[in-house]
Amino acid sequence: MRVLGVDPGLTRCGVGVVDGAPGAPLKLVSVGVIRTSPGDEIGVRLIGLERGLEELLDAVHPDAVAVERVFSQHNVTTVIGTAQAGAIAIACGARRGLPVALHTPSEAKAAVTGNGRADKAQVTAMVTRLLRLDAPPKPADAADALALAICHVWRGGAQARIEAARIRQGRTRQ
Amino acid sequence: MRVLGVDPGLTRCGVGVVDGAPGAPLKLVSVGVIRTSPGDEIGVRLIGLERGLEELLDAVHPDAVAVERVFSQHNVTTVIGTAQAGAIAIACGARRGLPVALHTPSEAKAAVTGNGRADKAQVTAMVTRLLRLDAPPKPADAADALALAICHVWRGGAQARIEAARIRQGRTRQ
Repeated sequence: MRVLGVDPGLTRCGVGVVDGAPGAPLKLVSVGVIRTSPGDEIGVRLIGLERGLEELLDAVHPDAVAVERVFSQHNVTTVIGTAQAGAIAIACGARRGLPVALHTPSEAKAAVTGNGRADKAQVTAMVTRLLRLDAPPKPADAADALALAICHVWRGGAQARIEAARIRQGRTRQ
Repeated sequence: MRVLGVDPGLTRCGVGVVDGAPGAPLKLVSVGVIRTSPGDEIGVRLIGLERGLEELLDAVHPDAVAVERVFSQHNVTTVIGTAQAGAIAIACGARRGLPVALHTPSEAKAAVTGNGRADKAQVTAMVTRLLRLDAPPKPADAADALALAICHVWRGGAQARIEAARIRQGRTRQ
């Protein structure tokens, strides 16, 4: 299964695409960051992010999208931008009928390091090892998006299939 | 100018469309609520909301969209859903090249009642009077969306023109 992981943000939105299956080796497909300018009006930023995500979806055709769940513990002003960017990512996936899963940062960290409170360096080191990369993924802050994608691959396809069925059901109903 | 006001929410998203100009009488074009089911997965809800907004935009062709600015003072869990729904509304407007303005609830209340801390009954009463309706707008909780639209009409077209220029500039640049 191919998973797009999204670490949502307005200024920097991390995106990482991984191929894999529970118990099988993982393969890096794509990693990057979609940027929008803090000086731009919010509408411009959201459709800029949407355009970047659509281009990536067109290029890599993932089977599922995993988006970082917004944490209510965070600073509330940060939460608003993260929630807005996350909503765009969720809608881009759902609009294509893809299963969209939300995982918390702790779930992603625990999946790749075994520790839900692992620091950034540890997450990056494990993502590099698990994807058998020669060097840490660049840009560095997209490692979280890759960790999310890996987390989703390992949580298996069952949950994804249930969600896909839900989306199809929702579409028929509306 | 015709303004679509949006009071964002996942379960109930208030929408109100008003025709008017600073100093001229206001006219109600449309008022309603777009609902999505709390039992549905977030992706299904966001694209359901998007579909409702797109249908409304196709039907009424507003010149501008006014969305309630998410308040960081609010409960953070509520803020996440409001920010997600608001992002969809902002993106729907921006995608069509419409100017999208954000106004706080206080700005909308102050615009229609003269008091930024007016209660719901007072806002509804003034919206009813200003739009010269025979009865309060139904559903009642869409009155906030109408207040937002009226607030935007009265703040005049200058700001809207600046934002439209910014959106066009942003599009060319990307």
